[in-house]
Amino acid sequence: MYRNLRVVPQLIFGRGSVHQLGDLIAGQRKDPLSPVVFLVDRVHRQKEFVRQLPAAAQDLILFVNVDTEPKTVYVDELTLQVKAFSSRRPCAVIGIGGGSTMDLAKAVALMLTNPGSSSEYQGWDLVNHPGIYHVGIPTLAGTGAEVSRTTVLTGPTRKLGINSDYTPFDQIIMDPELLAGAPRDQRFYTAMDSFIHASEALLGTFINEFSRAFAEKSQSMCREVFLGDIDEAIADEMLMVASYFGGMSIAYSQVGVCHALCYGLSYVLGVRHGIGNCIVFSHLEEYYPEDVRTFRIMMEKHGIELPLALTAGLSEREMNEMIRVALSLEPLWQNALGPDWKAKMTPERARELYLRM
Amino acid sequence: MYRNLRVVPQLIFGRGSVHQLGDLIAGQRKDPLSPVVFLVDRVHRQKEFVRQLPAAAQDLILFVNVDTEPKTVYVDELTLQVKAFSSRRPCAVIGIGGGSTMDLAKAVALMLTNPGSSSEYQGWDLVNHPGIYHVGIPTLAGTGAEVSRTTVLTGPTRKLGINSDYTPFDQIIMDPELLAGAPRDQRFYTAMDSFIHASEALLGTFINEFSRAFAEKSQSMCREVFLGDIDEAIADEMLMVASYFGGMSIAYSQVGVCHALCYGLSYVLGVRHGIGNCIVFSHLEEYYPEDVRTFRIMMEKHGIELPLALTAGLSEREMNEMIRVALSLEPLWQNALGPDWKAKMTPERARELYLRM
Repeated sequence: MYRNLRVVPQLIFGRGSVHQLGDLIAGQRKDPLSPVVFLVDRVHRQKEFVRQLPAAAQDLILFVNVDTEPKTVYVDELTLQVKAFSSRRPCAVIGIGGGSTMDLAKAVALMLTNPGSSSEYQGWDLVNHPGIYHVGIPTLAGTGAEVSRTTVLTGPTRKLGINSDYTPFDQIIMDPELLAGAPRDQRFYTAMDSFIHASEALLGTFINEFSRAFAEKSQSMCREVFLGDIDEAIADEMLMVASYFGGMSIAYSQVGVCHALCYGLSYVLGVRHGIGNCIVFSHLEEYYPEDVRTFRIMMEKHGIELPLALTAGLSEREMNEMIRVALSLEPLWQNALGPDWKAKMTPERARELYLRM
Repeated sequence: MYRNLRVVPQLIFGRGSVHQLGDLIAGQRKDPLSPVVFLVDRVHRQKEFVRQLPAAAQDLILFVNVDTEPKTVYVDELTLQVKAFSSRRPCAVIGIGGGSTMDLAKAVALMLTNPGSSSEYQGWDLVNHPGIYHVGIPTLAGTGAEVSRTTVLTGPTRKLGINSDYTPFDQIIMDPELLAGAPRDQRFYTAMDSFIHASEALLGTFINEFSRAFAEKSQSMCREVFLGDIDEAIADEMLMVASYFGGMSIAYSQVGVCHALCYGLSYVLGVRHGIGNCIVFSHLEEYYPEDVRTFRIMMEKHGIELPLALTAGLSEREMNEMIRVALSLEPLWQNALGPDWKAKMTPERARELYLRM
């Protein structure tokens, strides 16, 4: 049985394409009083394109705080806020920001039509009802959140996505102009997410030619951007596509060692995904030798320095929690190490790796 | 204004995945008497996988003849046959075959819900109603028909597709096992369609980084398959993906000189698209120099010989008709040669090119 992959069915790519959002939303406004909900990373509050958002009188713009990664309690809180705002069910949810904001938008779109707390849906295929029509507009490139069938959330007992066929966006707008102005470090960390997605797909046991093609191209674009000499505007366009390709590659395979360990790190230390991935990946030459070497060269060329000794002060309880969260991600380990992964990635081995970070 | 690209929203990729068709159809059988219509290239009639098709008592299997390329009259005839078969509207149309069969399935799915003749819809965005749920299962790789928003038809006055957002399949199954057993020549010609799609996208004026990524990867897969030394099973998997990528690349850009001239050739001489493209492309070194050279090396390596002097015996009327059909394809020429294409591709110039073939 092969997965029947849900692909984002509508996409727009191009500089300035964010200004087409109004036309897209217009098609959804069947009930003139039903609000459109915009979830916008608050760092964009003053940006020109945000002030020009096609919001009508009955719409709701929520500036979200993603200083920490999205939590299920935050999703539940935003969902309540939307419900309290209008008695009408929203006709669209628009997420504008990086991977965290994308994930919040996807999660809120689902929770507006599914009862209970978002933490009840962390896992695979637990969502019963389609969400509200939702649109993703990334302002950082690399996470693949614009194409993925998950929305990664930190819940009361774990960091795990809501993986379902209802999770992917109905529409994405890939406007490379929105990438301009991101802090250099963050741009690098986020782009590396797609580089790492591709590594984990290519060296995983779930790989197939469909995923391979997306992964190889995603990596070669990252290499061109960070090792070549490419005009920044073109580089932004390439990173936007590299993110899509990286996301497509893992959508039909799976991530691996780096993401599993990073989830543990984020859960306990609150390290953000982009930088967390980079920290973990830099210690994984045993698993992804060539790509880790390339990654280090890219880091050096761009003057990126990663924090050291992150896990040094951890208590025994925290370390065990980190290991527990990481090792609970079965499909990731199966992809990375095969069906007998438990023999290869023992809690001791995971501890050893964490202690290097 | 950028195009809002309709992407096939569900896909399955993998060896033997055709056997998942039954599960997919089951989800569509809401009215137990509504038939599923299978349009199958008649060359597959005796194949094991066709005899195992999940057809129920109320379903209709039509073995289609694609010895010549699909005509609008044939689409209308098949549509009438389906309507005569059952008073119920079909719940699904399944196309199984090469690009021509894919196109027939897409066209019939549209014509079951839109009035009149299919020739009335040749053009861009003339379709008003969504078609029947339709599934594409390619048995040749290269045309990209499995992802395209067109269905190329020869009508009373032209060869032109029904281009619309309702045209793309709702679901595709990419089963590389179905490629086994195709005649060597045909396999080559069809694969070259995706190689040529990529050339025309990459060297066209409509190119963007999204299309470029798909086009470059599609071409590199074709090169690996036809110039490298790759196991045939893997090669089939790669060609299946190369076709998808080539199709995606032109979906967000456009084809060019080769396709425009090939449409004229097919219209007048009935030359099939795969071989026709190869014949035309081999004479286009002025437009696609490097790729034509690579193409010739691939031909040589695989012992492919193209027919010569195809246009030698043409009457003046036929030649003019060929030129008329080719030059009517505005968007293709705009992509290939820019807004002042008419100065560059005069009827005389087109004639000169045709006379070489």
